[in-house]
Amino acid sequence: MKNYEKLIVGALICLLFFLWPAAAEEASGNSPASVADSYRDAANRIIEAAMMDRGAWEKLEYLCDRIGHRLSGSPQLERAIEWAASEMRKDGLQNVKTPPVQVERWVRGDESAEILSPIRKKLHMLGLGRSVGTPAEGIRGEVVVVRNFDELAGLGRDGVAGKIVVYNVVYEGYGKTVKYRSSGASKAAKLGASAALLRSVTPVSLQTPHTGATRYSEGVERIPFAAISIEDAKLLQRLTHAGKRVEIQLNMDAHTFPPTTSANVIGEVVGWEKPDEVVVIGGHIDSWDVGQGAHDDGGGVVVAMQAAKLLLDLGLKPRRTVRVVLWTNEENGLAGGRAYREWIGDEIVRHKAAIEMDSGAEKPVGFGLGIRRDDLTQHDADQAFALVSAIGDLLSPVEAAEVVKGGGGADISPLMREGVPGLGLRTVGKHYFDWHHTEADTIDKVNPEDLRTALAAMTVMAYVLADMPGDLLPPATLP
Amino acid sequence: MKNYEKLIVGALICLLFFLWPAAAEEASGNSPASVADSYRDAANRIIEAAMMDRGAWEKLEYLCDRIGHRLSGSPQLERAIEWAASEMRKDGLQNVKTPPVQVERWVRGDESAEILSPIRKKLHMLGLGRSVGTPAEGIRGEVVVVRNFDELAGLGRDGVAGKIVVYNVVYEGYGKTVKYRSSGASKAAKLGASAALLRSVTPVSLQTPHTGATRYSEGVERIPFAAISIEDAKLLQRLTHAGKRVEIQLNMDAHTFPPTTSANVIGEVVGWEKPDEVVVIGGHIDSWDVGQGAHDDGGGVVVAMQAAKLLLDLGLKPRRTVRVVLWTNEENGLAGGRAYREWIGDEIVRHKAAIEMDSGAEKPVGFGLGIRRDDLTQHDADQAFALVSAIGDLLSPVEAAEVVKGGGGADISPLMREGVPGLGLRTVGKHYFDWHHTEADTIDKVNPEDLRTALAAMTVMAYVLADMPGDLLPPATLP
Repeated sequence: MKNYEKLIVGALICLLFFLWPAAAEEASGNSPASVADSYRDAANRIIEAAMMDRGAWEKLEYLCDRIGHRLSGSPQLERAIEWAASEMRKDGLQNVKTPPVQVERWVRGDESAEILSPIRKKLHMLGLGRSVGTPAEGIRGEVVVVRNFDELAGLGRDGVAGKIVVYNVVYEGYGKTVKYRSSGASKAAKLGASAALLRSVTPVSLQTPHTGATRYSEGVERIPFAAISIEDAKLLQRLTHAGKRVEIQLNMDAHTFPPTTSANVIGEVVGWEKPDEVVVIGGHIDSWDVGQGAHDDGGGVVVAMQAAKLLLDLGLKPRRTVRVVLWTNEENGLAGGRAYREWIGDEIVRHKAAIEMDSGAEKPVGFGLGIRRDDLTQHDADQAFALVSAIGDLLSPVEAAEVVKGGGGADISPLMREGVPGLGLRTVGKHYFDWHHTEADTIDKVNPEDLRTALAAMTVMAYVLADMPGDLLPPATLP
Repeated sequence: MKNYEKLIVGALICLLFFLWPAAAEEASGNSPASVADSYRDAANRIIEAAMMDRGAWEKLEYLCDRIGHRLSGSPQLERAIEWAASEMRKDGLQNVKTPPVQVERWVRGDESAEILSPIRKKLHMLGLGRSVGTPAEGIRGEVVVVRNFDELAGLGRDGVAGKIVVYNVVYEGYGKTVKYRSSGASKAAKLGASAALLRSVTPVSLQTPHTGATRYSEGVERIPFAAISIEDAKLLQRLTHAGKRVEIQLNMDAHTFPPTTSANVIGEVVGWEKPDEVVVIGGHIDSWDVGQGAHDDGGGVVVAMQAAKLLLDLGLKPRRTVRVVLWTNEENGLAGGRAYREWIGDEIVRHKAAIEMDSGAEKPVGFGLGIRRDDLTQHDADQAFALVSAIGDLLSPVEAAEVVKGGGGADISPLMREGVPGLGLRTVGKHYFDWHHTEADTIDKVNPEDLRTALAAMTVMAYVLADMPGDLLPPATLP
């Protein structure tokens, strides 16, 4: 080695020494800056294609208009599942499968509620999912209106027994108020109520009842439970407040039948380097038995399907497998989400991330990232968040760049509980709860531009997470 | 007369000469400035009392919750009329009367509309008032969707005959779009349509059909005509646009029965100086047969009733008579408005103004003044407008001071046609057409504060117009 050669080698060693920390991060492929740089071109190609896309809308139109709502156990849900699998095959997805899932089968049947006195008036109602029905002759009873569980407790058994409890609960956000739908029947039944009615959990109403799942506590009598419109709940409150004895007739022919077989729908864009490592992207294919399930969750379903097609069309095959999963039975059981967890078995350790879109198809603003791992260092958690934020930044051109801590989705919660990082698409959330679980959740409420933006966001996030050289998180430390 | 006396007299004459024009106006009592000054205290007393009032709300609650909707010919309307007259008597109004009015009697009956193919789906529908029914077996037919009358004309008889026309008309404001409701049936029938459906005339929908009156042209076959929700109209448009043959089953048991007897309700605060001169204040007591008719026009009814009570309670007896008139049958006939015109006969020349509140009970912003007098000089018209604007100014404390040109109300239009100046209460008009003629026009949509403001505005306007020394307009020049 000549002297000038020694000098060069020495200089290079010095340089390497100083650059080492950055270079090490760079080598894992996961420094936020390098992700932003490496994937900007791909992200822009995806965004450009997504913002011109018509396929997602065409799929949503078919799902909503031609199949319609699709509650677990209904023939429409099974048609939707067959259709989705067939579309995936047509789109060129690989390993398309419909692994069977046993699901609840609750059927609403005929139902009505009417004020008998001091006036006669039909109420705008929808039985709540999983509710028992009434006897054939219905239940007739005096109404007692409460504004919260405390008021109910204050009335005690003397004030409640044999009566129909009406929860006239002011909406304070879905997360906070929905507990009345979940546990209202059993809480009323414990005090001897014969049935219960719930002011719909929503901020806005045009005599619009909202259904949704309820839950019975073990060992408590199961009483019929139905949602009524905000208007009718307030009317009952005014009438009782005016000192009137208000009597109601409730008829519900709801039945829960033995479980039936449904299916999750799965299709893949197989990874070229690590095909057995998986990034899941999806929504739930079932809906309530009203409206079209357009926002809940038709949008999530067609965006996940179309994201895979977009990657194939653009020739963007990622390192890892992007797996589209359309879960069944989210609304009344979550059997699809649980069954998917069972179905993958030990493969869960190779699930690098799971992304769900189930907060409606309004204008996206970004993602929420949820990580439930006790074994992570703060540094690792911060790194993961910074990385997802950097991927989010790639969505600045469509104003969907905001990444916040906390998020996920009901269907991916069984994966998240076992440490898979979960992401949920977030939207402006202006009207979702006006429409959700009602006759008004229809495709006309979806802005095609917003759907395209969601497609751009979901595809970019899935692609980068599946393609980036390193992992989002270090492997779990097994206890 | 001494010299200095002559000087004084001369000076006084000079002064009078210069002050004459202002003094003349002042003497008539009608200079805008003098009205504003003379009535500020009274207006403030009225506003203070109105903004504390509970009576209007209590009346509205009874009308909406205990009587409910009240279509012409229904027992509820007659109960409302009896109740209103009885309330007026209790409140101390004088000359309470219910002069009979012959009204249309249209009864909706059972009704339904369903898509039979390419999917099966019930439509959210409401038959339009005055529509004929279908034969007992209903009408089954292929759908043809048009976006406007031009598209309908473009299809011609070949494209329309035997089919069910669906008007999927984008809402461009009630005044502009409602013509499709008025004349859509006859225009479709002229081309041989078997029935017609109308996208509800509203900007907003949660699967909300809006009823309202339709009109058949003479000599054209009367075909059934119903409103459907915006969502369902768009669905039909999408299905036909996708090239599908869409078939619908329409059943309507609507009937028009022979006219029946209803009544206007009239009560007075008799004027102390000119009892035979009248300022009318009112709204219509009938409503459509859905919801509670809270905004349309329960608010107008109770505000007019309570305005009179407020004057009595405050001891503000005006010079002229303030006459409360609750017209019947505004919605489907306007028989009450016409009957009132007949009922007053020649007394119309002593009707100094008529004020109607029938644009909903949202937050008031002021009044519109409509004058239909060909014989007025521009100066007289300007004077009247300036005067009403000055009265409007008295409502600045409740932000209801804005007076615009043009206004009135359907029920007072027969008076206005014969020269009586008409005023209509104006509101922010944010949501009125979301609710109007639907199940959702209920009292919970009325803000008590807005109702009180309307009470303040209507009472001040009625009081000052009835009490000011001069007339709003010079007497009509008979042709």
